[in-house]
Amino acid sequence: MPKKTLQEIADHIGGRVIGSGEALIESASTLDQTGPGQLTFLSNPNYAPRVQETQAAAVLVAEEVETDAAQIIAEDPYYAFMQAVVLLHGHREHPKMGLSKRADISKSAKIGQNCNIHPFAMVSENTVIGDNCQLYSGVFVGDNVTLGDDCILYPNAVIYDGCQIGNRVIVQSNASVGQDGFGFATHNGEHHKIPQIGIVILEDDVEIGSNSVIERGTLDNTVIGKGSKVGDAVAVGHGTKIGPHCLLVPQAGIAGSAELGQYCVIGGQVGVVGHIKIGNRVKVGAKAGVINNVPDGATIVGTPAIDANKAKRAYALIETLPDMRKKLRTLGKEIDRLKDK
Amino acid sequence: MPKKTLQEIADHIGGRVIGSGEALIESASTLDQTGPGQLTFLSNPNYAPRVQETQAAAVLVAEEVETDAAQIIAEDPYYAFMQAVVLLHGHREHPKMGLSKRADISKSAKIGQNCNIHPFAMVSENTVIGDNCQLYSGVFVGDNVTLGDDCILYPNAVIYDGCQIGNRVIVQSNASVGQDGFGFATHNGEHHKIPQIGIVILEDDVEIGSNSVIERGTLDNTVIGKGSKVGDAVAVGHGTKIGPHCLLVPQAGIAGSAELGQYCVIGGQVGVVGHIKIGNRVKVGAKAGVINNVPDGATIVGTPAIDANKAKRAYALIETLPDMRKKLRTLGKEIDRLKDK
Amino acid sequence: MPKKTLQEIADHIGGRVIGSGEALIESASTLDQTGPGQLTFLSNPNYAPRVQETQAAAVLVAEEVETDAAQIIAEDPYYAFMQAVVLLHGHREHPKMGLSKRADISKSAKIGQNCNIHPFAMVSENTVIGDNCQLYSGVFVGDNVTLGDDCILYPNAVIYDGCQIGNRVIVQSNASVGQDGFGFATHNGEHHKIPQIGIVILEDDVEIGSNSVIERGTLDNTVIGKGSKVGDAVAVGHGTKIGPHCLLVPQAGIAGSAELGQYCVIGGQVGVVGHIKIGNRVKVGAKAGVINNVPDGATIVGTPAIDANKAKRAYALIETLPDMRKKLRTLGKEIDRLKDK
Repeated sequence: MPKKTLQEIADHIGGRVIGSGEALIESASTLDQTGPGQLTFLSNPNYAPRVQETQAAAVLVAEEVETDAAQIIAEDPYYAFMQAVVLLHGHREHPKMGLSKRADISKSAKIGQNCNIHPFAMVSENTVIGDNCQLYSGVFVGDNVTLGDDCILYPNAVIYDGCQIGNRVIVQSNASVGQDGFGFATHNGEHHKIPQIGIVILEDDVEIGSNSVIERGTLDNTVIGKGSKVGDAVAVGHGTKIGPHCLLVPQAGIAGSAELGQYCVIGGQVGVVGHIKIGNRVKVGAKAGVINNVPDGATIVGTPAIDANKAKRAYALIETLPDMRKKLRTLGKEIDRLKDK
Repeated sequence: MPKKTLQEIADHIGGRVIGSGEALIESASTLDQTGPGQLTFLSNPNYAPRVQETQAAAVLVAEEVETDAAQIIAEDPYYAFMQAVVLLHGHREHPKMGLSKRADISKSAKIGQNCNIHPFAMVSENTVIGDNCQLYSGVFVGDNVTLGDDCILYPNAVIYDGCQIGNRVIVQSNASVGQDGFGFATHNGEHHKIPQIGIVILEDDVEIGSNSVIERGTLDNTVIGKGSKVGDAVAVGHGTKIGPHCLLVPQAGIAGSAELGQYCVIGGQVGVVGHIKIGNRVKVGAKAGVINNVPDGATIVGTPAIDANKAKRAYALIETLPDMRKKLRTLGKEIDRLKDK
Repeated sequence: MPKKTLQEIADHIGGRVIGSGEALIESASTLDQTGPGQLTFLSNPNYAPRVQETQAAAVLVAEEVETDAAQIIAEDPYYAFMQAVVLLHGHREHPKMGLSKRADISKSAKIGQNCNIHPFAMVSENTVIGDNCQLYSGVFVGDNVTLGDDCILYPNAVIYDGCQIGNRVIVQSNASVGQDGFGFATHNGEHHKIPQIGIVILEDDVEIGSNSVIERGTLDNTVIGKGSKVGDAVAVGHGTKIGPHCLLVPQAGIAGSAELGQYCVIGGQVGVVGHIKIGNRVKVGAKAGVINNVPDGATIVGTPAIDANKAKRAYALIETLPDMRKKLRTLGKEIDRLKDK
């Protein structure tokens, strides 16, 4: 890894050095596990005391702190740190192998420039793939898919037929995009499969985590909006619309035909029932069960999900139910005694 | 897509036209997103008002409604609509490639007629595959598996050794069937793996969703009964018996050795503990935690799961716990004051 | 399968026969589904009555019981039974195919002795694989990975670049190890991907279930400790440390930077929030939501998770909330009446 001076890093991120700008920085690290040659950061003020004890060569902070380490002052230290990590370590480099002879690429497929398609990847008929795309081993792309530029499909990711993938989309390993929605018409005791004629649209800059499952729509399309990031093992139902710039944390599930606005944050293991509307900038705490429409800007948690402040107090009181019940009985007896007087 | 007249569709589904039977229908759609040439349906009476506003050429209904659109009257409009979708759009057509030279098919395997086995699929020793099966790219079928007729294994689906798959079974992408159950004997501080000598049996007409995991049994078999449909990312434990015609919604988990009757509906993210019995036609609401046996016909929800009507009122009251506690204290003080008198 | 006499089995596991040691045992089975030639076991005393009715030829028990079947007395009958299952049935045998020409193995990779690398598996650059490893079809191993001896990677398992895998590690089908952690710096309304420069370390004797997802660390590493077993569809976040000999039951999720001690048992569908510490020998009941540090030896359940004994009573009382509310109102009215007097 190439070393950078602290000053080079500060210049790159638009920050200001306190201490020696000549210090050589080799790598980025957490506050706790640092050593010489390392750069760390402080964005959560709760961790401020640790900055004083850090062994790091330098720390990225929003405001000057008391520490022996050199400092870079930056307005948004977490973002600045991200830029520093990219400068020091870069993003993953992909093998340059062009179109492997061991891949199976349909003659009717159109492949853009500078793509790398690895052994055992399959690109089906009439599919169009943009420039600079990486298709790792075991990737399957069905018929009539369109893929924009600069996409990365990691090993064994599957894109079913007809789906439309934007630019700079990343799909991690073993994820499934566009499989049939869970749609059956039950008649005379049998569940009849309804052809799922919608597709999945992943807009620009979407990332789908490993082993996540994004169902195609029954009649209309499933959409993940521009810039939204979906964690691992997340399930998105058929016809669901996720707005732009949402974050879906691992193991969350959004049932069919639900609609999320923009900039929503859906916690881990959250469940959202189908056919409801969640506004913009809604935050749903981990493990919540959302069963009703949610207005813009709400922060909710619990099952059923309610306002987070209310929930924090209310759910913590479940523990006191045996006491409450006892107290109720005691009061009842005392009242009886008073009535007897 | 081939257009059909409204009368052709009505004849196909056994319905009755109100309006012009000559109208040409091109595709099926939802109530909201319709346009000329489209057929939609009304099965949920709550949406009846939308029928009046629909832009669709025609609507499938159980009883005549007030609307400008033409109508087809059918007893079970959702099932009729399913039939119309199949007529208009068909089920997915599979590439006709026969047995790809780039697939790896054991010489000892027996493959039925008219199968398509795609590049990079693997069929292991002594495995028997019926007629008209589709094995997509990256599918793995282990040793001694039997697969019936008309099965579809989507990309990267994995069937471990010895499993028995019926006719018309569908396994979606990246699903795992027959991996080792989670079984260990802990002795002297180490967890020793117990060979899982049971298999998985998927009976006729079963569908397994993408990225679902169906463990093989430790000693007896894991069984998914005829016609049952398992959504995406569902986990079924070792030795578990799912009866026929059940629906398991995405992200549900049924632990080992649990038994479900027939026609159960298990909601999304539901958890069922191991070694319990769930009767026939049981409905479990989304996210419920089921820890006890459940009698036939019950509808339950919540964690722990209780009767759904009770649960609806009870769980909604968690929100009022702070108020209840306050009220309890107030009553206590008032009683004290009364006693002092 | 080779038959064994009861005496041979008893000798193998260090047990004592009651009845005829000459009886031939063919296979292992559960208590309920036994027949002639079968060996079963009793480890849970609740099932003792079933031993009297068993059709098995013999039963493994801790202490002599009343039954027509022959018996083997062993101190730890479940462990002894595991040994008997291995003796009778063995662990899965892996196809002996050496390094398939249809696999893609980088010239810079070093492969140990007696490995089997199946068709369509891919081993990337500078990766080192120990002796006696099994890489099934569709497995992907990225650049610079090290894999110890006697590892098994089942079909379509994915190991990203740089990860370090110990000896005797098993990764079941479609699992993902080392994909990017869910880490983004949000700035000016966009979520910027933070390069995840940590890796995943799976220590010796770890097993990862099918379709589980183990994120690589952002800056420090994600670690699964020696002998820990992870079930199917489990999600482990970036930088999380799982101590040795833990059991993570299917669909559990441990968020980023959480730390678990040794010998923890995490139930199915449990969620653990990030950045908390869970001590040694902690047991978390199924579906619990853990939001605070947990001391050594605790047994907790519920969302939020509390002491299991407390929780058992408290959560069961949610059902009584409507009654409690009614009672509160009644008491309030009675007090009002008393005050009026």
